[in-house]
Amino acid sequence: MMIKGKARAHANIALIKYWGKRDDELVLPMNSSLSLTLDCFYTETEVIFNDDIEKDYFYLNNNIQDEAATKKVSDFLDLFRNSAGIKSSAMVKSINYVPTAAGLASSASGFAALAAAANVASGLNLDNKDLSIYARQGSGSATRSIYGGLVEWRRGISGKDSYAVPVDDAKWDIGMIVVIVNPKEKLISSREGMKRTVETSPFYTSWVESAEEDLKQIKIAISKRDFEQMGLIAERNSLKMHATMLGAKPPLSYWEPESVLVMQIVRELRKEGIPCYFTMDAGPNVKILCKLSESYKIKERLTQSFHEEKIIITGPGPGVTIL
Amino acid sequence: MMIKGKARAHANIALIKYWGKRDDELVLPMNSSLSLTLDCFYTETEVIFNDDIEKDYFYLNNNIQDEAATKKVSDFLDLFRNSAGIKSSAMVKSINYVPTAAGLASSASGFAALAAAANVASGLNLDNKDLSIYARQGSGSATRSIYGGLVEWRRGISGKDSYAVPVDDAKWDIGMIVVIVNPKEKLISSREGMKRTVETSPFYTSWVESAEEDLKQIKIAISKRDFEQMGLIAERNSLKMHATMLGAKPPLSYWEPESVLVMQIVRELRKEGIPCYFTMDAGPNVKILCKLSESYKIKERLTQSFHEEKIIITGPGPGVTIL
Repeated sequence: MMIKGKARAHANIALIKYWGKRDDELVLPMNSSLSLTLDCFYTETEVIFNDDIEKDYFYLNNNIQDEAATKKVSDFLDLFRNSAGIKSSAMVKSINYVPTAAGLASSASGFAALAAAANVASGLNLDNKDLSIYARQGSGSATRSIYGGLVEWRRGISGKDSYAVPVDDAKWDIGMIVVIVNPKEKLISSREGMKRTVETSPFYTSWVESAEEDLKQIKIAISKRDFEQMGLIAERNSLKMHATMLGAKPPLSYWEPESVLVMQIVRELRKEGIPCYFTMDAGPNVKILCKLSESYKIKERLTQSFHEEKIIITGPGPGVTIL
Repeated sequence: MMIKGKARAHANIALIKYWGKRDDELVLPMNSSLSLTLDCFYTETEVIFNDDIEKDYFYLNNNIQDEAATKKVSDFLDLFRNSAGIKSSAMVKSINYVPTAAGLASSASGFAALAAAANVASGLNLDNKDLSIYARQGSGSATRSIYGGLVEWRRGISGKDSYAVPVDDAKWDIGMIVVIVNPKEKLISSREGMKRTVETSPFYTSWVESAEEDLKQIKIAISKRDFEQMGLIAERNSLKMHATMLGAKPPLSYWEPESVLVMQIVRELRKEGIPCYFTMDAGPNVKILCKLSESYKIKERLTQSFHEEKIIITGPGPGVTIL
């Protein structure tokens, strides 16, 4: 027996951040989040269940992966194998179309593409809601990459109701600029970082409440296509997430000098009348939410301080596609 | 009648920060704080009550000051005039021995010196405890500049019991390096900044609780002369204060790219075995708590990134002195 599936999924950047789990095993988040799926960064993955091989193999960008990476993929595929009653081993081939320089986490597009490919190969044919529940168990942010445009990941109550829902197709004047900042210090993974924050930051409880309120407000702004409010809420939410990290013990900061420089440029541009807003994740890169129609002006300003190749403009991207 | 007094007071840098008032009028703080008085930065002030002049005059660095600055001094002197039954106007002459480049707030040394000079001129002869209560009403941080070394400012309960107490004379291997960072953006005064934080940051309540706990812990560390613990607590406390600002609406950040660079250098030095710890206030400058015996090594490293004249080493300073 040899059955296969192939799919593409895009990366996403949260405007209302996911930072902290209430259940490590099931990857249930403390708060709901909201993201923009990005066009330029994606992963294509093929899953082949094959009786003739004795163990799982995982190729990433045509390179065979080590045991640890393969085990993560195997464990994830077990969710599908168990549901579909498949006993075969799998050959998994992934290509990441995320420029190495981009320094963007590829786990969102990676696990979303893997889930979508396994969904076809296993014959489970889950709908997008259930697919997002499966993807979630690979990596939290993968939950949202099932859909295109602006996507909400609902925290849920029971644990079975934590999944993504599309909020807006983002087919209006929205874009994002990723500014690549090279880190000087060794970075702590977002998994570790959020764990430390949940366990030690005195600000964590207030963060969760505040993020739920931000989510409510940004959805109102999105429904009105009020770009300024949407951006201001996103920027504040990101700063609050980083504030919770500063409160951790030991403190956690992903900011490099150049990250602060980008923030200053964004605030200057805003004073000049160009609506643009920064957001940062568990790394030193800064993402700028802007209007695509003004993205070239913003890029031009940034090139005064950064190499052109470190500034990537992208538009909203689609949800998972079966190939 | 012409009576006069002259005094010197030194600046201080908080290791456990004062950030937020519970009473604007009386300058009562939300939490207790603790600081190190600095040797290199001070103010000398002379107060002359003189029946022959019709209004108050205030000279700072030999320049006559405008109405707004003079009114602050007049209002403050009224505290002494009312208590001592003095009706005369005053001539006030202050010299700030804080290098302009240092960008350090001079209100702490300024109001402490003014209080001490007025205390002599008015004949009130308050003791240091009451003097710190008077100084507090000029500027919160001036409360602590009455004493030398390590000083606690107790928040108090009733409003009449908020004053400074000396904790340790700091006559051991303690120093501070001030690194001057020029701000690109217009700065918001600490008065405004703390007000906005108290009113809008979701993290503020947790900050107050956390600062009181930090104070307890740092006093234990000081009593043991455990320099490492003392520094770690101070650094974390400062980051938590800045975290509360990031949560404000609109967010508040005093960090410049170079501020982050100094933090990174401090962390590197620590990895190399040199105990040093950063702290920041409502501005982009970074102060490094270190051992005086190692301050030259730290300065040497900093000169790789900063002009020598932007790096100032100082030791612990004394309390107010009558001149």
